[in-house]
Amino acid sequence: MACCQIAPDVERPENNADKVRRAIAAGVAGGAEIIVLPELASSGYVFRSVEEARAAAVPADGEVLRAWAEEADRGGAVVVCGFCELASDGRVFNSAALLADGDMIAIYRKLHLWGDEQRWFAPGEEPAPVVSTRHGRIGLAVCYDIEFPELTRGLALEGADLIALPANWPHEPSQDGARPVLHSLAEMTAYLSKVFVAVCDRCGVERGAEFEGGSVIAGPEGGLRAGPVADRGVETLVADCELAQARDKRTSEHNDAFADRRAGQYVDALVQG
Amino acid sequence: MACCQIAPDVERPENNADKVRRAIAAGVAGGAEIIVLPELASSGYVFRSVEEARAAAVPADGEVLRAWAEEADRGGAVVVCGFCELASDGRVFNSAALLADGDMIAIYRKLHLWGDEQRWFAPGEEPAPVVSTRHGRIGLAVCYDIEFPELTRGLALEGADLIALPANWPHEPSQDGARPVLHSLAEMTAYLSKVFVAVCDRCGVERGAEFEGGSVIAGPEGGLRAGPVADRGVETLVADCELAQARDKRTSEHNDAFADRRAGQYVDALVQG
Repeated sequence: MACCQIAPDVERPENNADKVRRAIAAGVAGGAEIIVLPELASSGYVFRSVEEARAAAVPADGEVLRAWAEEADRGGAVVVCGFCELASDGRVFNSAALLADGDMIAIYRKLHLWGDEQRWFAPGEEPAPVVSTRHGRIGLAVCYDIEFPELTRGLALEGADLIALPANWPHEPSQDGARPVLHSLAEMTAYLSKVFVAVCDRCGVERGAEFEGGSVIAGPEGGLRAGPVADRGVETLVADCELAQARDKRTSEHNDAFADRRAGQYVDALVQG
Repeated sequence: MACCQIAPDVERPENNADKVRRAIAAGVAGGAEIIVLPELASSGYVFRSVEEARAAAVPADGEVLRAWAEEADRGGAVVVCGFCELASDGRVFNSAALLADGDMIAIYRKLHLWGDEQRWFAPGEEPAPVVSTRHGRIGLAVCYDIEFPELTRGLALEGADLIALPANWPHEPSQDGARPVLHSLAEMTAYLSKVFVAVCDRCGVERGAEFEGGSVIAGPEGGLRAGPVADRGVETLVADCELAQARDKRTSEHNDAFADRRAGQYVDALVQG
């Protein structure tokens, strides 16, 4: 598995698609079977207007994703990549695509919009999906979604071996020296549901906003299998993960993270408004 | 708020109730308004037989809890304490009691039994409760429950300002030097739902089993307000917590940990078997 932490550039949108394609090619060349890329990798993040976001958006069935899918397919790899999606009705979504077998297999439109995102994006209207691939069952989520245990736990309960989470996590200078909360979130999400969690963050600075470069790959035991990246720069994290390990939820002779659940005793407020 | 990390002793059950009473008295003398004590503080943990567990069990409406409630009431304090409960039908539960106003106000019977516990205890049959007290709204959970986000998130959604979690967390020598996962769980549970989490663990060794002594108090920002205890010994953690802070779920100008939830988009598997 590889997380390609790259730096898309909202000022040069014409370069981003190829930057992603090259990262996929490098991942494939390195033998990665699952390649995760950042949120909004096709466009950059710090938009100034709705028009700018729409101009940078691409359709889910268009050339950009097709080129990525074809590049991935040269190595039989599965790709999860965030992109700025132009829907057929003209709305713009902050989406993640799962690409496999040379095709776009599934799209997830981010449910939880963060910060200014509601100015540019329509919120998703479908649950986050779990997709069966030749390399395992992959649940999709994007960035801020990791702060909603209903969503991440739901992906695991629906059978995800891996939660692939493209991100554009802002760097907080006031927290310099402290461990980014993103890393604890990745570890605890993995630990609680005994799944793998691959956070592929972006890096770089856009219009004065610096990103965390906080990519990590966490394993079902709750520890980091790869990362964090030392200097918030461009880097590809690689981890050798046996995804089938995530199908065994036993934690001891007596306990099992899923079988021990008491589903009848949880409040409906979890799934109701 | 005070977490009284004490060492009950399963070999000398006759001493435990008074050990708890003295801890409550000390907490009250120190000005604590909310006092949390460990799981099974009335009995100790490492039972050898069902008979031993039953012999150590006390009724929720009996003398032991009444004495604790009266001690707490001298300072107008609210107490959450784990105890070995003898139900009226003879079953034994691993329970937590909330004591206030000189009385037993609520009982929670642990839903998720860990390790050997299913040999001694019947599993709870009711959701974990949130209780309104003069010092804030307190959600009850016990030890291993913290590994079930459905339960902890549910408590927060039901209005808990504080999740009070009596624990008997085993110390894992193989993890010496590493941060106990319990502390990350407490922090992330607090962070995700913007609540306080008071873990009151026990310490000491019983029949060869050492406990973590991992008490901590986490705040809504996700950091520790008190603890961890340095040497896994007897200690009272104290933190000055404004519980009303947990009623503001805003995290920025644009975001709110609860208002941002997309309840219609979470899977029913969360609350169904």
